[in-house]
Amino acid sequence: MKNNIPYKTYLTEKEIPESWYNVRADMQNDHRPLLNPATMQPVTVADLSSVFCEELAKQELNTTDRYIPIPEEIRNFYKMFRPSPLIRAYFLEEVLDTPAEIYYKYEGGNTSGSHKLNSAIAQAYYAKKQGLKGVTTETGAGQWGTALAMACGYFDLDCKVYMVRVSAEQKPDRVAIMETYNADVTMSPSDTTEVGRKMLLDPANRNGSLGTAISEAVEYAVLNEGYRYTLGSVLNQVLIHQSIIGLESKLAMEKIDRYPDVVIGCAGGGSNLGGLMSAFMADRLTGKQSPYFIAVEPASCPSMTRGKFAYDYCDTGQVTPLAKMYTLGHGFIPPASHAGGLRFHGMSPILSQLYHDGYLDEARSVTQKEIFEVAGLFAKVEGTLPAPESAHAIKTAIDEALKCKETGEKKVILFGLTGTGYFDMSAYRRYRENDLDDTPPTDESIAKGLANLPAQPDF
Amino acid sequence: MKNNIPYKTYLTEKEIPESWYNVRADMQNDHRPLLNPATMQPVTVADLSSVFCEELAKQELNTTDRYIPIPEEIRNFYKMFRPSPLIRAYFLEEVLDTPAEIYYKYEGGNTSGSHKLNSAIAQAYYAKKQGLKGVTTETGAGQWGTALAMACGYFDLDCKVYMVRVSAEQKPDRVAIMETYNADVTMSPSDTTEVGRKMLLDPANRNGSLGTAISEAVEYAVLNEGYRYTLGSVLNQVLIHQSIIGLESKLAMEKIDRYPDVVIGCAGGGSNLGGLMSAFMADRLTGKQSPYFIAVEPASCPSMTRGKFAYDYCDTGQVTPLAKMYTLGHGFIPPASHAGGLRFHGMSPILSQLYHDGYLDEARSVTQKEIFEVAGLFAKVEGTLPAPESAHAIKTAIDEALKCKETGEKKVILFGLTGTGYFDMSAYRRYRENDLDDTPPTDESIAKGLANLPAQPDF
Repeated sequence: MKNNIPYKTYLTEKEIPESWYNVRADMQNDHRPLLNPATMQPVTVADLSSVFCEELAKQELNTTDRYIPIPEEIRNFYKMFRPSPLIRAYFLEEVLDTPAEIYYKYEGGNTSGSHKLNSAIAQAYYAKKQGLKGVTTETGAGQWGTALAMACGYFDLDCKVYMVRVSAEQKPDRVAIMETYNADVTMSPSDTTEVGRKMLLDPANRNGSLGTAISEAVEYAVLNEGYRYTLGSVLNQVLIHQSIIGLESKLAMEKIDRYPDVVIGCAGGGSNLGGLMSAFMADRLTGKQSPYFIAVEPASCPSMTRGKFAYDYCDTGQVTPLAKMYTLGHGFIPPASHAGGLRFHGMSPILSQLYHDGYLDEARSVTQKEIFEVAGLFAKVEGTLPAPESAHAIKTAIDEALKCKETGEKKVILFGLTGTGYFDMSAYRRYRENDLDDTPPTDESIAKGLANLPAQPDF
Repeated sequence: MKNNIPYKTYLTEKEIPESWYNVRADMQNDHRPLLNPATMQPVTVADLSSVFCEELAKQELNTTDRYIPIPEEIRNFYKMFRPSPLIRAYFLEEVLDTPAEIYYKYEGGNTSGSHKLNSAIAQAYYAKKQGLKGVTTETGAGQWGTALAMACGYFDLDCKVYMVRVSAEQKPDRVAIMETYNADVTMSPSDTTEVGRKMLLDPANRNGSLGTAISEAVEYAVLNEGYRYTLGSVLNQVLIHQSIIGLESKLAMEKIDRYPDVVIGCAGGGSNLGGLMSAFMADRLTGKQSPYFIAVEPASCPSMTRGKFAYDYCDTGQVTPLAKMYTLGHGFIPPASHAGGLRFHGMSPILSQLYHDGYLDEARSVTQKEIFEVAGLFAKVEGTLPAPESAHAIKTAIDEALKCKETGEKKVILFGLTGTGYFDMSAYRRYRENDLDDTPPTDESIAKGLANLPAQPDF
């Protein structure tokens, strides 16, 4: 090791932050309001409370509290897997022969295998506290569903997961883990909801999509007493809970006397990047020093780099509120060959607004081949087999480190390693067998998706 | 949390032990010598050096050095996933309502998902240092194979894994991970070795067994220049490397001012229990305070509880040295319904001797249903989904904690959580579907296995 910075920097359990950070309190321009799809008026806590439990409805609309205390029960659960380590990528730096320092915050060291557990336990907790019977959700790759199943298992809450059928069929082990935590996993589209039954009329919809699964989960929650809906990304409440990643990262970097020049996160719905950047974005928004922020998305699902900043639904079934965000249209589905995750058609309204206003500095897209190539390298030199999602950030961190090699700059690069790739081995296999098509969506297919946007309301 | 003991206790990286512990230096009675199957005489370093790389052959026969320095390259690699946390099972204690304190050393926080990486990196390092081209090995469940693939990937060594065919077919994701680390995975029995070809003559052998896979891996290593054989358990060298678990455990317990009353480890070949008990067994052998040691094995493969302390081969093909150990006979194969791991017919010669001499206090066997039941409970309350192997130790720790509830004793219980259950979800599924037969081997099948023992040499 080159100097006194350890390979892994841990905070103590007592240093786990006592509050989450709510970036909206510091944003100069708040994101445009979420709209109730029935009235096309800004949603109220009352509107949202039929979908989310009340405390979360309040968090969703909270623009004033910079810090939201983390209940003790949640902090106790966090101790099972937090503080997560901040890792100095010594081995990667060495093979890259870069003067840059590369750090990553590793969120995969829990059974769900990703950062999603940070918000799952919060959403389950508030549901339990409200005396609910259970929660519903959708899951694609299964990371969020597993996290929610764990959280519900812990609080003895009923957990109803709508899983995109093609994912469920490809990942029986993910289903089995959720079931081990007593979750009830339904393949979507299903005949348990009106939205599902409608989709099933056309056999072309059989494989399912995240958008349809969301619609099903929302419908079930709204129509069944004692249930509420939960979501693993996109929403403001999720970014609040995920802020723990960035808060811990900043504290850990202070311990080793560093501040990042660049912060890089993969971005699907925005939960990881929004979380990782939190404490540093607070610095930016309050006029202190700030890193350069980069969002990385798949070339197959390029909401920020090729989408439009517009009001759109968050789901195919149009049952969710409309959000102003970077979107490819709520009907957009990445090409079937896409195996790299991050398949949501839109982007967190907060991140969208920050990007629109220039606080989130840059969005990039990378191809599948690029991510699986660096994933293999990373696994070999740093030991951890990354989730394809995380590999988007690895790819960009490597690119930035190689730029430093050219310029001689000793930049401090921080990226989010959101999870492990254990359940993505079929995607890894397809990469090895040269079976991943990397043709990006055509301009026509992007235009077709955007043609689906609703009439733009004046908010 | 009840008191000031944190949920997770970490050592600093600087506190990672600088030497492994070699228990043989302290044993009153050394285990009976390994015998060369060709000469039936004690093996020499020269004998072993055609199978193992030289440094490891020396470690295998080392009876004098209490401590063996860990090379810096290995300590650097260790930093990727060590020190591993010592976890206070607060949540488990609470549901059990026990006055006991339960701790576990968690070794699953790395991509191989188990403690096997501790020895894999050492074996790969010495092979690399000797200038070898590659190493061979066998794997059953895939934990050891994955660990070795990671280690070889790191050192750019060729890694040839013979994987029990039925496991490889059931666990394509395990195969894909090994291949991602560039290992070459061959299903055993295979036509790449004489032993394999012989086995394939009888279609009943098609599924393979650990014993056959060992024979194939050894044969390949001996007959191909630049290759040596490696093994993930049973051998003395493995117990030396795994001693890091116990050394770290003892240091971590000192930090929180505790000493275990009971140490519990699952035992297949003995790598985990041998490692976990190391520093505490040193105390016992040198007349200091000592915990009560319990080995836990599956009722389906009960080498210590129903086997015989006798000389036997470590493999079906009888190409490996003979060892005096608790064994069910080298032809013994657990019932097909067995899904809980720990399927080796014998037991580490060191552990066997310690058990025979009363230093390892007790061996117990538990059934599959028992282990999957506690595995589900543990996953829910402690968050981590355990490997079925580890669940053997969990079951026994719970039993001991419940005894304390009856007696009111505040015992300090330490067990080894060797790994995660990610790749055992088909076994979990079978448990949930009530598809695990728990009929133990009949007395006849045990007798049949033991009838296979070679004529006992006089050592």
